[in-house]
Amino acid sequence: MRYDNLTLHTDKYEINMMYAHWVHGTDQDRAVFEAYFRKLPFGNGFAVFAGLRRFVEYVRSIRFDEETIAYLSKQEENYDPEFLDKLRYYRFNGNVWSVEEGTIVFANEPLVRIEGTVFETHLLETALLNFINYQTLIATKAARIRQVAGADLLMEFGTRRAQEADAAVWGARAACIAGFNSTSNLRAGMMFGIPTSGTHAHAWVQHHDSEEQAFERLAEALPNQVSLLVDTYDTIGSGVPNAIKVAKRMEKRGKRMQAIRLDSGDLAYLSKEARRLLDEAGLRYVKIVASNDLDENIIMNLKAQGARIDSWGVGTQLITASDQPSLGGVYKLVEREKNGKREPVIKISGNPEKVTTPGAKDVYRIVDRSTGFAIADYETLTDERDVQNGEPLELFDPVHPYIRRKATEYDAVALLKPIFREGEPVHELPSLEELREYHAEQLKLFRPEVLRKLNPENYPVVLSPKTWRLKMDLIERYK
Amino acid sequence: MRYDNLTLHTDKYEINMMYAHWVHGTDQDRAVFEAYFRKLPFGNGFAVFAGLRRFVEYVRSIRFDEETIAYLSKQEENYDPEFLDKLRYYRFNGNVWSVEEGTIVFANEPLVRIEGTVFETHLLETALLNFINYQTLIATKAARIRQVAGADLLMEFGTRRAQEADAAVWGARAACIAGFNSTSNLRAGMMFGIPTSGTHAHAWVQHHDSEEQAFERLAEALPNQVSLLVDTYDTIGSGVPNAIKVAKRMEKRGKRMQAIRLDSGDLAYLSKEARRLLDEAGLRYVKIVASNDLDENIIMNLKAQGARIDSWGVGTQLITASDQPSLGGVYKLVEREKNGKREPVIKISGNPEKVTTPGAKDVYRIVDRSTGFAIADYETLTDERDVQNGEPLELFDPVHPYIRRKATEYDAVALLKPIFREGEPVHELPSLEELREYHAEQLKLFRPEVLRKLNPENYPVVLSPKTWRLKMDLIERYK
Repeated sequence: MRYDNLTLHTDKYEINMMYAHWVHGTDQDRAVFEAYFRKLPFGNGFAVFAGLRRFVEYVRSIRFDEETIAYLSKQEENYDPEFLDKLRYYRFNGNVWSVEEGTIVFANEPLVRIEGTVFETHLLETALLNFINYQTLIATKAARIRQVAGADLLMEFGTRRAQEADAAVWGARAACIAGFNSTSNLRAGMMFGIPTSGTHAHAWVQHHDSEEQAFERLAEALPNQVSLLVDTYDTIGSGVPNAIKVAKRMEKRGKRMQAIRLDSGDLAYLSKEARRLLDEAGLRYVKIVASNDLDENIIMNLKAQGARIDSWGVGTQLITASDQPSLGGVYKLVEREKNGKREPVIKISGNPEKVTTPGAKDVYRIVDRSTGFAIADYETLTDERDVQNGEPLELFDPVHPYIRRKATEYDAVALLKPIFREGEPVHELPSLEELREYHAEQLKLFRPEVLRKLNPENYPVVLSPKTWRLKMDLIERYK
Repeated sequence: MRYDNLTLHTDKYEINMMYAHWVHGTDQDRAVFEAYFRKLPFGNGFAVFAGLRRFVEYVRSIRFDEETIAYLSKQEENYDPEFLDKLRYYRFNGNVWSVEEGTIVFANEPLVRIEGTVFETHLLETALLNFINYQTLIATKAARIRQVAGADLLMEFGTRRAQEADAAVWGARAACIAGFNSTSNLRAGMMFGIPTSGTHAHAWVQHHDSEEQAFERLAEALPNQVSLLVDTYDTIGSGVPNAIKVAKRMEKRGKRMQAIRLDSGDLAYLSKEARRLLDEAGLRYVKIVASNDLDENIIMNLKAQGARIDSWGVGTQLITASDQPSLGGVYKLVEREKNGKREPVIKISGNPEKVTTPGAKDVYRIVDRSTGFAIADYETLTDERDVQNGEPLELFDPVHPYIRRKATEYDAVALLKPIFREGEPVHELPSLEELREYHAEQLKLFRPEVLRKLNPENYPVVLSPKTWRLKMDLIERYK
């Protein structure tokens, strides 16, 4: 059964809590939730936020249609028909702030803030986390790979190993935001305008009487994108020599072969040998593409060995974020309404890093005017104005409060932008090309020590003194 | 942009190969492809096949609609309009055989065999692998968890950490085939008829003036599924005592609390302590649910420590197959048509385990009549009849050919069943309940040494002598 309606793409407990609030007449109380993650993935020094477009489309699509209502009415609790009727008219009428896709983000800062009735805000948790956890993870992995690849072409090749269909296309898009140049998935190409690329399968060669015939026929049929897979039988013994013969014949027809592709074996050795053979044949313009379980570490090692690879097809390791296939983003209540008044709330935990920071918050990137580098992200309660007024800031690390620093000459960039206001979309989602450029610009704000792949410098995310005191007060109250 | 049509959920090279075949007039040649994986995941001794329903629905839904054709016509190659017109009328008219979902399967045996024109068979590769790689992976992970959980209730809780939306719902279904009892995802419940379950979020407690009030209100609203999260502030200090108070009040109203849920801290200690408190209060019937990054190893360790946990909520580790997030299933050409005659083909590789086994094949599970246990899977060319006629078989290991065994008194169960015949579906897909039962029955065919979680016995998958000779002959020919 296909069911494209994502309205019930939610954990049962969300509906149960909505129901329990409705039974007790508290469903119209206001609440503020914030989404964030507690730990950067891959030991990286930053993450790249993604998933906002998906979330916005989801919020706008929520409809409890008759099929959905009929399903819910048969759940074991026999929800009151009046409640189900209320669901029928569910529309999100709250406010959403979010950081833009492609933004460099860090642990323990709000990435999305959602404000509305408990009825409308509870519902969104599961889908929001499902989307931003995955897409942020893949964008971050892609940024690591882009970093080692320099200016080389990066192609996303992962669909067949992706965790089902949505991961393939939304993962391709996230990779593209963070610097990948193309995807092999045509549906992703069509949905998001990502350039597509591909060579041919081993089956193409196997289907012909000889490798040379297979190459020749592909070159005749697709003369402008000839990229030949040379490892079906023997890369250096037959694949590359056959590709050279075909390239020379193409030249006579006024065409140029684009590339050969290495997909197995010792890529360092094979690429150097293939480059030598191509060059000796006067085919300096034919590029060498490599694939086969590549990731940022293998690419870096191949480069260190002097491999002659011009572009990289990255599949499994990227699209599944193989070394850490999940990001632990959470959605936490930070403020509730009580007797018509808003009050901050906290969640205590035996696990110190799981204690939440209370209050609806904004987050500003503090950029030192003298260097142009970002020096800290600064969280404030939404009603604080110091940072907007450019007043001197005290940046102190809540875990190590003896580490303090003053900021006086700075620019403060608000990371959270309004996305929905009373249910109305107020933010035009940028094009993919704009997001790519925005992301590339963002990287320039950070010192290389923060961006490096291994043992990066810890970039500070600090609380304003007011936020910090609020947190301490609430911890005290619950002890 | 939403685009539910999965027709272009394929790698660009598939369309390019279809095009190149069309240009050369070979697009109507027949071809046979087989899908299989080379290595079992998680060091497990078996895998659980899943993904067939998804694939069947996909094949039946393929339609190159005008939007798709318009997109393809703008690709850099400017495909010939006649080719695009042929796509407009694409329908899969070939044959498909597949093992049933829930079947225990092994490395290097065909799981799906597809026969048709090269035009229609190339297109299916990417989506087929995308679906069966992921779903088989999750079903296998779930089977490992079911094995350590014994008869305990297993609940799938992973949506928020799943790799996007499709993974959440199809992963929940795969887990259910292999023995999970429920999912938290309502959409998965609605799509597939999986029972759903859930408790409440920390936010429910934070929204109230006290934990006790929060518990009480939930118990009033949802009296038949009261399952309380007791770790918002202090599990033993306040959570469990408050749950006990509420359970006692429920008793006065003739209701019984279902469970408490532990979601952080030392689950071994906390479960024993909570059990003691519940029992002392006369609440032996209140179950203890545990969650928090559980997997088969943690569950086994908790059980070894005598943890008093009745049911398990398993999220991230299951739904992402965290310790090995991809299965390397491949789709390989095994037979092609040449001048109207079918001939087997091979792919050689410097990597010995990547050499394919040529020829269209069937696979039989050989069950020893005296013990009732499966002793080997036996691959034959499709035109071989020995095994169907019950003739004595020589089971020999192609990697270690000195290991031989005769089978005489056996039943041979054909694993590949016809799914499509000339494009027509000929297999009624079983219900989820039927698949669960079928899977449970399948497990009984294997000795516990094959099924055990750690260092399982290697179950043999062998080639018929005819298949083996064919492979050797073709290797010889290409050397």
